[in-house]
This record gives sequence, structure tokens and C-alpha cells, in this order.
Amino acid sequence: MNAFTILLTGYSGSGKTTIAQALKREFIRRNIPVELLDGDIVRKDLTADLGFSKKDRLSNARRIGFLASLLSKHGVNVIIAMIAPYSDCREIIRHRVSNYREIYVKCPVTVCEKRDVKGLYKKARCGEILHFTGINDPFEEPVCPDVTCETDQESIYTSVARIWGNLDILSDIREASPFSAMYREP
Amino acid sequence: MNAFTILLTGYSGSGKTTIAQALKREFIRRNIPVELLDGDIVRKDLTADLGFSKKDRLSNARRIGFLASLLSKHGVNVIIAMIAPYSDCREIIRHRVSNYREIYVKCPVTVCEKRDVKGLYKKARCGEILHFTGINDPFEEPVCPDVTCETDQESIYTSVARIWGNLDILSDIREASPFSAMYREP
Repeated sequence: MNAFTILLTGYSGSGKTTIAQALKREFIRRNIPVELLDGDIVRKDLTADLGFSKKDRLSNARRIGFLASLLSKHGVNVIIAMIAPYSDCREIIRHRVSNYREIYVKCPVTVCEKRDVKGLYKKARCGEILHFTGINDPFEEPVCPDVTCETDQESIYTSVARIWGNLDILSDIREASPFSAMYREP
Repeated sequence: MNAFTILLTGYSGSGKTTIAQALKREFIRRNIPVELLDGDIVRKDLTADLGFSKKDRLSNARRIGFLASLLSKHGVNVIIAMIAPYSDCREIIRHRVSNYREIYVKCPVTVCEKRDVKGLYKKARCGEILHFTGINDPFEEPVCPDVTCETDQESIYTSVARIWGNLDILSDIREASPFSAMYREP
């Protein structure tokens, strides 16, 4: 068993979920077991009691790390899409699993705020949301991410291909199938 | 995929963990994926914030149910050993998974208290532990468990064999290998 735990970390609106879903499809297309743990969704089931203070974010990372460790132990590759703004959040997950990849989904917060897909930046600017990363809460940039995806400068195809390439180099799941044409640029 | 989620419910000291570990070995011996979620252990990683009030016990069941649903979805059989004293706790788990088995690990609380492996009954009697099932907190007996193991009257071998038998009847994991001699009575 050599399952990966792939953490996509970055601001809200940076493109974590979009990349995570495309990456998940690559696993499924190859019949490789995969589970996507999306911060927003997991919060409903596993961490509904937690807010966004540093303490709560660390608890969140601890629970998701535990979940990832159980799944990956059974050969299920895990993709985690969560802001994970503190280096400590990421370290908690890194230390829980055996085959960790850190993907920095990098996008200037000004661009994320312009996208504002969920209308959260607007709420944060109005003071309706406390501890909103990039507005009134810090984001500690990953120091040595395995891959950095600059989503304001590269396509989803490029991001997913680069993450996949990083897995292939070091894994035993390399196989003949070429990278999916699904995301190939026209 | 037809993975089971097997909940062992009963008083502290009734024998849930002992049966769960023996049952786990039966899966492992047959190379069938299995994970044991022991209430006491899971509390450290997943539910450290929770106490033993009814509200907290329900939250605990919700998180463990979520975990079980993810694992079983990927073909991992899940054994849960937890007191789960309220019918609501058990229903939360039942509704989360597709192939649920409820095992009532039945033992008079007086016998459990005599065993008192972890010294918890003594503490509860001294008032050091609140919400202790059987002493100062209720236990709602399962109404229609799939198997009832009366651990003050039957051996572990018998309990495990009966649980295994219940799985075999309805599952696609029936196979030629006879039941392990490991637990066969002398």
C-alpha cells in the first residue's frame, strides 16, 4: 500500500476545490481508490462544532489527519482541500500519514476576493465573518510545497498535470495510461 | 463492495473490545479489509472534545458514523466498539452505512462492575465520573439486535462465531475457510 494524502492549501477562492475535483477524476478514471475530503463538506459531518480560531483550525486538522491516516492505511488515496492557513495545521496532517504531498494553491488574495464565488469575502469585509483568512486572519505561506499551482496564471489542466506528475515520480501507481484528455487545453 | 459496519454495543466491561479484537483477527486471517474503531481510542483522536452527556454521545456517534461510512464505501469492514447507550446513537450509525449489524454485548451491570477492568465503576461509585452508563446514566437495551452475545454465559469463541455466522448468511464474503481454530474451545 502506498496511498497518498494530498493536501491542497490556499486562500478561499484560490481554486482548491476545482483542482481537487479534477484530480479526483484522474484517480477514478484509472480505477485507483480515492476520497476527497473537502474542508467545507467535512465540517458538516466531522467538525460542525469548530469555528475558525487557530485552536479550532488545529483541531480540524487533527480530525481530518486522523481520517486521512485511516483511509490511506487501507490503500485509499486522500485529497484534502482545506485552507490550512497555519504551518502547524499542515504539519499535523503531514505527521499523521506516510505519503504526504503538499500542494500550494497560490493565488493573490486580491484575485480571490474578486472571484468571491461564495460571497464570503464580502461578508468578511463587512465584519460578518471573523477569522477570515487573508482579510482578518493570517496565511502562513508553505515553505517547501511539493507543487505550487499559480491558479491566476495557469489552467486547471496544467495544475492537475503537474500534481499528477509529482505523484508519478515517486509512486508505484505509474501506469501506461496517458494523462486524461479531459482537461487538455484546446 | 459490500462492507459491513458492525456495532458492538453494551456496558463498559461487557466484553466489547475483547470480542471486537477477536472478530478483527477473523477478518485479517481471511485477508478481508477491516478497521476497528474502539470508542476509547477514537476519543483520543477524533472526539477528544466530547464528554459523556447525551448530546456529546450523539456527536460522538455522528463522527464515528461518518468515519465508518467513508471506510465501508471503500470496501473496508468496520467494527465499532462503543457503549452507544441510547437507541439514537445506534440509529445515527445505522442510517449512515449501508450494511449495518447491531451486536448487543449483553452482560448484567453487576457482573461488569465486578470485572471492573479499568477501575471505572469504582470511580463512578465515588462520584468521580458523571454520566457513567449503568451507574448514573441509562442504557437503552437494543430492541432488535442482529446478534446478542451474553458474555457472562458464553465464551468469546461462541460470541465471535455467532457474529461471523450472521455476516456469512447475508454477505458475499462467504468462503471455504473454516472458522478459525484460534478461539476454539479446548
